Amino acid sequence: MTDAGGVRRKSNRRIVLDARPIGVPEPRHFRRDDRPIEEPAVGQFRVRNCLLSIDPAQRGWVNAAANYSEVVQLGDVMRSLALGIVDASRDPTYRVGEYLYGWFGWQDFCIADARNVLRRVDPGEAPLTAAAGVLGIAGLAAYIALTEIGAPKPGETVVVSTAAGAVGSVAGQVARNLGCRVVGITGSSEKVAECQADYGYHAALSYRHGFHTEALGAVCPSGIDVFFDNTSGPIADVVWPLMNARGRIVQCGTVAEPIWEPVPSGPRRDRLILTKRLRHEGFVIFDYVREFPRVASKLAGWIREGALRHREDVEKGLDRAPHALAALYRGDNHGKKLVEP
Amino acid sequence: MTDAGGVRRKSNRRIVLDARPIGVPEPRHFRRDDRPIEEPAVGQFRVRNCLLSIDPAQRGWVNAAANYSEVVQLGDVMRSLALGIVDASRDPTYRVGEYLYGWFGWQDFCIADARNVLRRVDPGEAPLTAAAGVLGIAGLAAYIALTEIGAPKPGETVVVSTAAGAVGSVAGQVARNLGCRVVGITGSSEKVAECQADYGYHAALSYRHGFHTEALGAVCPSGIDVFFDNTSGPIADVVWPLMNARGRIVQCGTVAEPIWEPVPSGPRRDRLILTKRLRHEGFVIFDYVREFPRVASKLAGWIREGALRHREDVEKGLDRAPHALAALYRGDNHGKKLVEP
Repeated sequence: MTDAGGVRRKSNRRIVLDARPIGVPEPRHFRRDDRPIEEPAVGQFRVRNCLLSIDPAQRGWVNAAANYSEVVQLGDVMRSLALGIVDASRDPTYRVGEYLYGWFGWQDFCIADARNVLRRVDPGEAPLTAAAGVLGIAGLAAYIALTEIGAPKPGETVVVSTAAGAVGSVAGQVARNLGCRVVGITGSSEKVAECQADYGYHAALSYRHGFHTEALGAVCPSGIDVFFDNTSGPIADVVWPLMNARGRIVQCGTVAEPIWEPVPSGPRRDRLILTKRLRHEGFVIFDYVREFPRVASKLAGWIREGALRHREDVEKGLDRAPHALAALYRGDNHGKKLVEP
Repeated sequence: MTDAGGVRRKSNRRIVLDARPIGVPEPRHFRRDDRPIEEPAVGQFRVRNCLLSIDPAQRGWVNAAANYSEVVQLGDVMRSLALGIVDASRDPTYRVGEYLYGWFGWQDFCIADARNVLRRVDPGEAPLTAAAGVLGIAGLAAYIALTEIGAPKPGETVVVSTAAGAVGSVAGQVARNLGCRVVGITGSSEKVAECQADYGYHAALSYRHGFHTEALGAVCPSGIDVFFDNTSGPIADVVWPLMNARGRIVQCGTVAEPIWEPVPSGPRRDRLILTKRLRHEGFVIFDYVREFPRVASKLAGWIREGALRHREDVEKGLDRAPHALAALYRGDNHGKKLVEP
């Protein structure tokens, strides 16, 4: 077995869940637990991971609370999406050398079957890093959540939190491509500049510098029609009072609140929801797996036309995965966080 | 001029807003300011009020905060819906003797034009008190909000707060007529009994007696698909954790929180919204005025078939209106609160 860099591996390096975190998982919650490389049984194939996808949603998969998916058990390989290549197969529908995007975990090799696969990847459609980033759940979530739930109309104002992140940067560009005024909220003046220069936001603000409702209102002179929210918490509190009547709030993430057990307090929104007839709706990308090929193909087209920029933040070394995940909640990443094992 | 009891009036008794309340309006915020009875000009008509509608929404019309409608100015007649009869007319489309439901205010007589009218009332369709109650905004709101936003499917579980109130009692019966399991939350054991005996709830609980999520869960064994919420606040906090995936929360009122400026705090719902893909949406009845004749006619049909029970709580005397409004927020009423001036 050789890895992407040509290193021959004798064992399958694996990172397993070692302790159950409350809130954001930290490196101390994981440990290495290497195993021999296994052979696929009939109906299975083996995937060699090329890029691990580091996603905010991974918090929910390891916290004890019932969630939209099963909780990862202690001692199990950390659940993760990844881009991999088939390197052995006893399923004729998956050929050796084929690239796949799916549930392959924080490890070098995954014994998989069809249920692990979310999408077959054509390496010619876009760079391979894009397949795990902008064409993976981050970009797919941005496009589907914005269009299905946010349903922005041309000329409307769309505000995006984590505006320079993997999901936010795509949501912002999709909104702009649909003819909206787009305002981003991000975590540093460097990222503010990135939002405007790279992702076409009409305006962007850092939540770390004088961020309050009046300041946001100044760059949203017609109010806000769609709030694409990846943060919750105090960042969202600044945005909500500016919502226009019949506005839509897409809850795509809650990354600004580190702990949800016990549930944190915040301003009650019910009166605003009522008087402005707002619609606040949650979004989980895995409800839309059937849409992945169609939407990935649409986004890949935009990439080739220059209408969708993307940026990946690739760290090298399987052991960096837990650090990369923790860094995500600190907002340290620039673009989609990936780990090349 | 004679009133409903045959008393000849020489002046128009009026109740005007005297001080701006913060939160719930109390009798001290109003005063009497009688005026001579006026004659309608061309294109106008005069309505003699038979029944004033006392509605929780009136709080929002007098609080300072921008809301879904203009704020009532100090010294102006208190805005109110009412059922009245045309007793003088210089608009040929409104005939003397015709019953109307509309914006006629806390007064004996209203000089009105077509813009004041929400619906023409056929006195044969149902008792006159029903026209200002179950066939007025309370019942119309219950039907339209439940069907348009809650969209319950047969077999689903619907929870209604203020379950014995003017809106809640109709929402509960509509849900039951649509084939749902319906659970009510109300304010006393007397009202719990009323919910089950009169309004067909499958179960009902008093929020004043051992009301917590486990107790509600015991009568919602399949979770909750639709929460028709008129309360917000601690009552709603008990309900939300039981929402099923893809549940809908209809925010039709916020009567359990007395003051919204400053905005009260409560548990953040964003993570629940996200992981369960809930949809939380506000409802204001005046967005649906065009639907009033169709829906009132549907509800009147149910009344005649015995499929919709209603109860009005009529107080006599114009001066009782401010007391009746304050009592509404204490939950003292049984059924739709009306004042016969």
